Amino acid sequence: MRSVRVPLGERAYSIRIGSGLLPRLGTECALLGLGRKCAVISDSTVAPLYGGSALRALRKSGFDPVLVSMRAGERAKTLKSVQACYDRLAARRLERKSFLVALGGGVVGDLAGFVAATYLRGIAFVQVPTTLLAQVDSSVGGKVGVNLKAGKNLVGAFHQPRLVLCDLETLRTLPDREYRAGLAEVIKYGIIRDAALFRRLERDLTALLRKEPAALAAAVARCCRIKAEVVSQDETESGLRAILNFGHTIGHALEAISGYGRYLHGEAVALGLVAAARLSASVCGLACQEVDRITGLLARAGLPVQVKLNVAQRRRLIAAMQLDKKVSGGEIRFVLADRIGHVLRGQRVPRPLLEQVLSRWIREPRSSIL
Amino acid sequence: MRSVRVPLGERAYSIRIGSGLLPRLGTECALLGLGRKCAVISDSTVAPLYGGSALRALRKSGFDPVLVSMRAGERAKTLKSVQACYDRLAARRLERKSFLVALGGGVVGDLAGFVAATYLRGIAFVQVPTTLLAQVDSSVGGKVGVNLKAGKNLVGAFHQPRLVLCDLETLRTLPDREYRAGLAEVIKYGIIRDAALFRRLERDLTALLRKEPAALAAAVARCCRIKAEVVSQDETESGLRAILNFGHTIGHALEAISGYGRYLHGEAVALGLVAAARLSASVCGLACQEVDRITGLLARAGLPVQVKLNVAQRRRLIAAMQLDKKVSGGEIRFVLADRIGHVLRGQRVPRPLLEQVLSRWIREPRSSIL
Repeated sequence: MRSVRVPLGERAYSIRIGSGLLPRLGTECALLGLGRKCAVISDSTVAPLYGGSALRALRKSGFDPVLVSMRAGERAKTLKSVQACYDRLAARRLERKSFLVALGGGVVGDLAGFVAATYLRGIAFVQVPTTLLAQVDSSVGGKVGVNLKAGKNLVGAFHQPRLVLCDLETLRTLPDREYRAGLAEVIKYGIIRDAALFRRLERDLTALLRKEPAALAAAVARCCRIKAEVVSQDETESGLRAILNFGHTIGHALEAISGYGRYLHGEAVALGLVAAARLSASVCGLACQEVDRITGLLARAGLPVQVKLNVAQRRRLIAAMQLDKKVSGGEIRFVLADRIGHVLRGQRVPRPLLEQVLSRWIREPRSSIL
Repeated sequence: MRSVRVPLGERAYSIRIGSGLLPRLGTECALLGLGRKCAVISDSTVAPLYGGSALRALRKSGFDPVLVSMRAGERAKTLKSVQACYDRLAARRLERKSFLVALGGGVVGDLAGFVAATYLRGIAFVQVPTTLLAQVDSSVGGKVGVNLKAGKNLVGAFHQPRLVLCDLETLRTLPDREYRAGLAEVIKYGIIRDAALFRRLERDLTALLRKEPAALAAAVARCCRIKAEVVSQDETESGLRAILNFGHTIGHALEAISGYGRYLHGEAVALGLVAAARLSASVCGLACQEVDRITGLLARAGLPVQVKLNVAQRRRLIAAMQLDKKVSGGEIRFVLADRIGHVLRGQRVPRPLLEQVLSRWIREPRSSIL
């Protein structure tokens, strides 16, 4: 088992990474000094696979858990689902010392985390991410929240988990498409902060696609370490943390205009990474070969690298970017790379240049496909 | 104008107390270095009275405000209203540097504060309380939230305002019943922390009931100072802050079982204060004359001191207390007074004693009145 510490003072916590960790959930929670009552929040995909195991592990350590299962998918990441959770917790009389376990992917983690941040003005929670994307990204760092019709993650809080338990075994049941989507975030870490990781991914991609334990554990731990490092320097995203959003401004906008349905988050991020790389070439002098390496690695991972949008959709895409949380004074600021392994924050991109670069990344479809 | 500082490090802020402060809202906000876009959240009672004045003040200082008005009343303090606010803010494209102004009573302040705490993971907000209760209590200290069907304030956050502006003039339009309800919290401060304030209230009650400016300003400032002192020692209610809940465990339960409709919050608190005083006499040796002084002062302020409940309602009252946020391990803990001006936290009250004391405070009605 590997362990990564997120050094946040009194809110510090550990990320445990290894195979077959889920049965240890109870013992790990017992070390945290939490109350007896808890709720495992999961979804209709993950609960049937791992809900029983999580409950058993908790009961064995003397906890009194209840399982709350949501409909699976990004569309369930709404205030309505949050309300449904609150009602279950209140009916079950969860108290301030009670805690939640988020068992699932990023949607479950974000939603359960927001419920934990706000129920009784905040109770403890533990992340048990079961997708690659959640293991390397969303389960670490305390960003929690839900979507509005107007955009993704427009509502939320900063609420750090007390523990993150990454059981790599759970990735065995992850559909191939979702696993590949998670690789988009792994590749992102290489681009923003670690050229050696990027090279290693170029070399080990085949092993990773086969989910070989050694390669997987190393990659997940490396990503978690980068995230922990960035988050500990900027917990509430007032500065450095923005680099984690490389490729996300465009990715989020794409998800928003497609109604959060067509693309998986990681797929939208892959497309956003390509667009951000192209913008980086125009604005910060990222070499064209590096743009090609980024595009090539994403393509080898089976991720989309070009999007089809008609003129109206392209306009909506830019409008959706304007609603991004990082917008300041109406102006969109981008995180852009000047080389693989290094990014610059707060980059202004003149609107005509933005449209020009996007137009090369976007293909005109014969008919609308969103 | 009086000014009280809430010393919370980087989250410190001032409470300004005086007559005719609302027209200064813009100048005060300009000193805080906030973004141009803002939303004034108010309700159907207060917006017609003071909404225009607030918007004018903000515009005069260069801000770009929008007015969002909710239905008045505790019943609107729900997640549904929160969702409606989010949608308005998103449509208006409020950004991270934008801010909210809560213009109204405790319901508006709690609701707008929760919206501010969670929209884009938290934006700034300013409290402009227009009821006595909000001025002396809910606008200070950063507790924000909404109700669930299962109980009051079961959902929320700690999110400190950047400024509290108490314009005593706004109390002129406050209905008499609501003004008296606010006095319950004023009296509470005397009981929990300030015997001199309690004596002053006994002496000056007539002047206060006439809303005489000098008496009013002194009382509001004194209460705010006590609250600031308590909150600065325990921002997130892990200890001392619980004393502010003297009388509230029973008060909240009473509101819950009556569907938040029959009693104003301050009236429920008045009833809770009497019950807590009686419990204090049984458990902590509060002298009977002190119980009488408390009951007498509340009655002189025109507040209810005895409640009528039938047997079933009494049972529901105790069940509702079990859901209180302060419950730990299923056991209700009370804040009780050993003398006027001093309270003890975490007091256990055996269930039979609780029922016995409550039975003397409750009268059997001929028929149900809730």
